[in-house]
Amino acid sequence: MTRPRSAFVTVYAPPEGRGYRPSPHTLRNKLARALWGIVRPLLFRPTPKAMHGWRRMLLRLFGARIAPDAVVHPSVRIWAPWNLEMGPHACLSPYVDCYCVDRVTLGANATVSQYAFLCTATHDPDEPDMPLVTAPITIGPDAWVAADAFIAPGVTVGAGAVVGARSSVFRDVAPRMVTAGNPARVIRMRSDAAFVESVEEAS
Amino acid sequence: MTRPRSAFVTVYAPPEGRGYRPSPHTLRNKLARALWGIVRPLLFRPTPKAMHGWRRMLLRLFGARIAPDAVVHPSVRIWAPWNLEMGPHACLSPYVDCYCVDRVTLGANATVSQYAFLCTATHDPDEPDMPLVTAPITIGPDAWVAADAFIAPGVTVGAGAVVGARSSVFRDVAPRMVTAGNPARVIRMRSDAAFVESVEEAS
Amino acid sequence: MTRPRSAFVTVYAPPEGRGYRPSPHTLRNKLARALWGIVRPLLFRPTPKAMHGWRRMLLRLFGARIAPDAVVHPSVRIWAPWNLEMGPHACLSPYVDCYCVDRVTLGANATVSQYAFLCTATHDPDEPDMPLVTAPITIGPDAWVAADAFIAPGVTVGAGAVVGARSSVFRDVAPRMVTAGNPARVIRMRSDAAFVESVEEAS
Repeated sequence: MTRPRSAFVTVYAPPEGRGYRPSPHTLRNKLARALWGIVRPLLFRPTPKAMHGWRRMLLRLFGARIAPDAVVHPSVRIWAPWNLEMGPHACLSPYVDCYCVDRVTLGANATVSQYAFLCTATHDPDEPDMPLVTAPITIGPDAWVAADAFIAPGVTVGAGAVVGARSSVFRDVAPRMVTAGNPARVIRMRSDAAFVESVEEAS
Repeated sequence: MTRPRSAFVTVYAPPEGRGYRPSPHTLRNKLARALWGIVRPLLFRPTPKAMHGWRRMLLRLFGARIAPDAVVHPSVRIWAPWNLEMGPHACLSPYVDCYCVDRVTLGANATVSQYAFLCTATHDPDEPDMPLVTAPITIGPDAWVAADAFIAPGVTVGAGAVVGARSSVFRDVAPRMVTAGNPARVIRMRSDAAFVESVEEAS
Repeated sequence: MTRPRSAFVTVYAPPEGRGYRPSPHTLRNKLARALWGIVRPLLFRPTPKAMHGWRRMLLRLFGARIAPDAVVHPSVRIWAPWNLEMGPHACLSPYVDCYCVDRVTLGANATVSQYAFLCTATHDPDEPDMPLVTAPITIGPDAWVAADAFIAPGVTVGAGAVVGARSSVFRDVAPRMVTAGNPARVIRMRSDAAFVESVEEAS
């Protein structure tokens, strides 16, 4: 299994200190994440699905704001619970990656389906040292982010909007709109029936 | 880590009883899935790759119809084995999510590659309470669903068709067609050579 | 849970010997992968994030060529370490699938973000027995493959290029170009500032 080292790697010798800008996270942030990194695999991940109250309690201990009847499944990944806020009946489904380097807010009844990826952090590729760039994500009330969708940093999904399965959203989605594709495009408006009843009930 | 509760979440107070329509699954369905949820992590997931016969036996105990030489890798997720049917030489590759809330049928020699997601359930976003909607998925004989592809509820992938890696399929794919992209589009026809030999051998 | 066996599966009876061409991998390859399949879950996967030196050492024992300050996170999947080469400061982020059935080479400072899939193997769908086809992947120096992107077999991502989050790349990406979408398309050029400083520092 020995091979000659390719020229590709060795001819390029970056100078000392070349590379990414150091992590901007505070020591407190790193310690809190290290503690969460111990608590999550031991006390959160192995819990039965029905123990929603226990998981809400753990998330609140780490600073999350979670309405009493919000749902977070055991397999959900949450980078920093203190950046997560969930309204009544909001739901993070199995295997969602809530990469909340910046704040993630789910409105009432907002649903994020399995494998969806809420990504609040990126790097600026136009700077030589690729600094970390973060921006909050907001999923509006009654909105639905369907299975294996991707939400980019800074995106707001409007109230009642639907992000279709597997779509990748890089711009805000207006309320009640339905999007699909990669990159996601608006394909139609959600029906009046759903919207009107929702508004009437809420008023 | 304390922050003021945002207006976004608290101003929207859904009335009592607002939310999703309750799960339509029967008690028998729920009990069977609970049992499978115990059996899978203990007896199915940790098995060596070569123990295909053992995993077929477990799936059959839970009602699956599996041809003797079909292959299901240990890391495959199967929501309800009794909704799965696999023909001779059919294959579910590592990390496939076979989300068979409705029936999933794989024809002879059908191959589903790693990370693919066979998704038989969605919600109707045009109804206020977002009822569950399911529809069967059929992967025809000799068809190939390539890596990390997504198959939406109700889709039939025709005999000998190819769903390209990472594509997302929301409509039926005609036999022998090759699709790619998100949303997936037909890009060409599979070669005659593959098709003709297949037909001749089968006849 | 008993149902009649569907006609779909049983009417199609493939003749003896029909199916995929047997695996072309050598016995040595299979034994080395079997050994890696024992070492990885026991000694590589459960390690704390900071133990980069330990994981580099394990990968080198299995034939990888890894620069002293390259980074491979514990959750990275590597099919065959002896097919992996990483230059200085190169990084494979959490949950990357480095499916190196063929060679994967990362240049200096190349970064592959979380959930990205470097896929060096496919099957030729135009041959009746679907032979395995592999081709190497090269990620150039200073290039960035962002989160949950897919790189197809044979693709070279040029120096300083950016493969946007969730994009699926089936063709070479020229140096400094930024791509997005599925299938990926070039959307712009990376800024001069990043490039010029990089070149000046390297010269």
